[in-house]
Amino acid sequence: MVDRLEKGKAKFNELYGEGKADGLVEMQTGLAQDLARYGIEFNFGDIYSRPGLTLAQREMATIAALVALGGLEPQLQGHTRGAINAGLTATEILETVIHTVQYAGFPRALNAIRVVTDALIAYGVEIPPALGPDKD
Amino acid sequence: MVDRLEKGKAKFNELYGEGKADGLVEMQTGLAQDLARYGIEFNFGDIYSRPGLTLAQREMATIAALVALGGLEPQLQGHTRGAINAGLTATEILETVIHTVQYAGFPRALNAIRVVTDALIAYGVEIPPALGPDKD
Amino acid sequence: MVDRLEKGKAKFNELYGEGKADGLVEMQTGLAQDLARYGIEFNFGDIYSRPGLTLAQREMATIAALVALGGLEPQLQGHTRGAINAGLTATEILETVIHTVQYAGFPRALNAIRVVTDALIAYGVEIPPALGPDKD
Amino acid sequence: MVDRLEKGKAKFNELYGEGKADGLVEMQTGLAQDLARYGIEFNFGDIYSRPGLTLAQREMATIAALVALGGLEPQLQGHTRGAINAGLTATEILETVIHTVQYAGFPRALNAIRVVTDALIAYGVEIPPALGPDKD
Amino acid sequence: MVDRLEKGKAKFNELYGEGKADGLVEMQTGLAQDLARYGIEFNFGDIYSRPGLTLAQREMATIAALVALGGLEPQLQGHTRGAINAGLTATEILETVIHTVQYAGFPRALNAIRVVTDALIAYGVEIPPALGPDKD
Amino acid sequence: MVDRLEKGKAKFNELYGEGKADGLVEMQTGLAQDLARYGIEFNFGDIYSRPGLTLAQREMATIAALVALGGLEPQLQGHTRGAINAGLTATEILETVIHTVQYAGFPRALNAIRVVTDALIAYGVEIPPALGPDKD
Repeated sequence: MVDRLEKGKAKFNELYGEGKADGLVEMQTGLAQDLARYGIEFNFGDIYSRPGLTLAQREMATIAALVALGGLEPQLQGHTRGAINAGLTATEILETVIHTVQYAGFPRALNAIRVVTDALIAYGVEIPPALGPDKD
Repeated sequence: MVDRLEKGKAKFNELYGEGKADGLVEMQTGLAQDLARYGIEFNFGDIYSRPGLTLAQREMATIAALVALGGLEPQLQGHTRGAINAGLTATEILETVIHTVQYAGFPRALNAIRVVTDALIAYGVEIPPALGPDKD
Repeated sequence: MVDRLEKGKAKFNELYGEGKADGLVEMQTGLAQDLARYGIEFNFGDIYSRPGLTLAQREMATIAALVALGGLEPQLQGHTRGAINAGLTATEILETVIHTVQYAGFPRALNAIRVVTDALIAYGVEIPPALGPDKD
Repeated sequence: MVDRLEKGKAKFNELYGEGKADGLVEMQTGLAQDLARYGIEFNFGDIYSRPGLTLAQREMATIAALVALGGLEPQLQGHTRGAINAGLTATEILETVIHTVQYAGFPRALNAIRVVTDALIAYGVEIPPALGPDKD
Repeated sequence: MVDRLEKGKAKFNELYGEGKADGLVEMQTGLAQDLARYGIEFNFGDIYSRPGLTLAQREMATIAALVALGGLEPQLQGHTRGAINAGLTATEILETVIHTVQYAGFPRALNAIRVVTDALIAYGVEIPPALGPDKD
Repeated sequence: MVDRLEKGKAKFNELYGEGKADGLVEMQTGLAQDLARYGIEFNFGDIYSRPGLTLAQREMATIAALVALGGLEPQLQGHTRGAINAGLTATEILETVIHTVQYAGFPRALNAIRVVTDALIAYGVEIPPALGPDKD
């Protein structure tokens, strides 16, 4: 039987960089470390490790879900890094936020795009220019 | 065909003051400006510009929706200004928050009424006194 | 001290018709009747009975909050009746749903406007025609 | 290393009756069975199997969370059965729904208490009478 | 200036088939047709027509957002069709639902995967088999 | 007839300490004090004062509901104190948050467990150690 914790750490580190999974658990205190560990085991050892979607597709679905749920700024910030590392372009990440406005409404989408844009800038990623009004 | 961006800016500025719509777009960076522009075009050029509801009625519905969705403090703060400018009294705005407690529960309503009260105070609007317990 | 249950029933019946408050409690079974009674006492005896907003304003805020929360079809249907009885026009009710799309997104708004439209038709209220695309 | 699927099935069957876990997976089709299996492995093999809370406490927390999230009638119905099997009384289950009205608002609590009451009746559990207005 | 309604209808029909956009508006009654028209103009004329994401990527983000919001069965059903037409495989659609369980929780994900699986079956799409427990 | 405000204050102070209920109302300004007062009257005078659940059970249901709703950090912090005062152990409180991850997803549960852990530390409560991976 596979060791899901090791499998999850490997997948997490593939996305975020060597040693990052341990840091995620260690930044929690006491019993809360079990919840972070489940996040590694289940989210990354079980779900992210499934075939059928690429890491880039998974990060795109993640961004859309986080915008829709609302109020999850720390996760949006972290997954912006994950999305870049998975190979999504800044355009693809930002367009995913813009796409979600149809379903989640403007306030959640606008709050999210500020967090994502700031995270991209902090990671040194160039922000693509606005397309501007349709001129056709 | 009407220019929705110009129409939206005019409606937004009618609510918030001359030149404010441009500021809303400019405070975003790059691609995010497109989302802010859609906010002007669709929210203000299409929806707020419809007949059938007064600006004051629209701001009241907006406050109720924002309290119900929860976690949208920046928007609640902004629309408190919009609601005052649209002619709602401080009493009407605060009573709309109190009214929404039935549907959204106490935590969301209490967090919202703090944001709205602080915004009213910041705008120099006098806060009406509590009615207090029913003495009939 | 005021009897909030009687006060709530009177306000509920003012909105929905004589004897309706008793029916609301009686359609629940056993302990659940206490929750329905709190709905009469608190929602109608305390909140709806406050001065500061008209019944029509309250119903408008209610519709906006229900659309934003999503998945509350029975309440949307009931308050469509309440909104009509409080003096809102079909246009004002439907425009409140359309207004809320900005904050709640298209799926919740579209599901809500179907429930509200069906309720208006069931109550024999004429549905106003669409404005159609802007022809300016 | 423990077999989480077997552990989860055992815990699930402890709550719902012999053989029920297999039924939960089999009622899904194809790939969806993996999601149901994760529900057994993670929810029941990992979380429900933790020490620190009794099964009855877990079912109480579950009811409160389901009412708060809204729109989860199938799960509320199922966990009403689970709560009874875990040793909660009908009063404790219904009072948990009533308690949650403070946080989730009246529409979600009222819709939930109808589902829970109907489930209790279907399971042959006697519904406790309402306490009625405070007569002190 | 571009006619957004025509542009939106063309994009909608590209996804759902010739003439479908007109049907979407016509199935609404009166004023509600304006909301459906905004859905065509804004969602499909503005957002879906943007470059930067493929139609398949957009449908994946849509599925994730709808699962996260919860209670949007009619939209999930419709977009399952859209996702197939945009070129996503049944595996990709179902894996997107499974992926979202991390963020939206099991009840919303399980209710969604039933709707999506049933829709796929109704459209004559073969459901891929479960992967089953990890055997490594 | 009972004075619900006095009854609510007594119940609130039983949970939080002498004089705390007055502070809750006084920290609000003007009309917002009415909403805080309703919180004392309805939440504590009506709901928390009902028989059928212990104070400890109520606080457990409250924690679960607050985690599920998301974005309610001030309330989670306050009720962590209430939960300790009602006799719940740190383990029971933290396990309630961990339990809720099944329904509310990882982001809400992880954000909540940080707030609860920090509140427990601030109150001088020892944090129980993680159980760690299953070693059976």
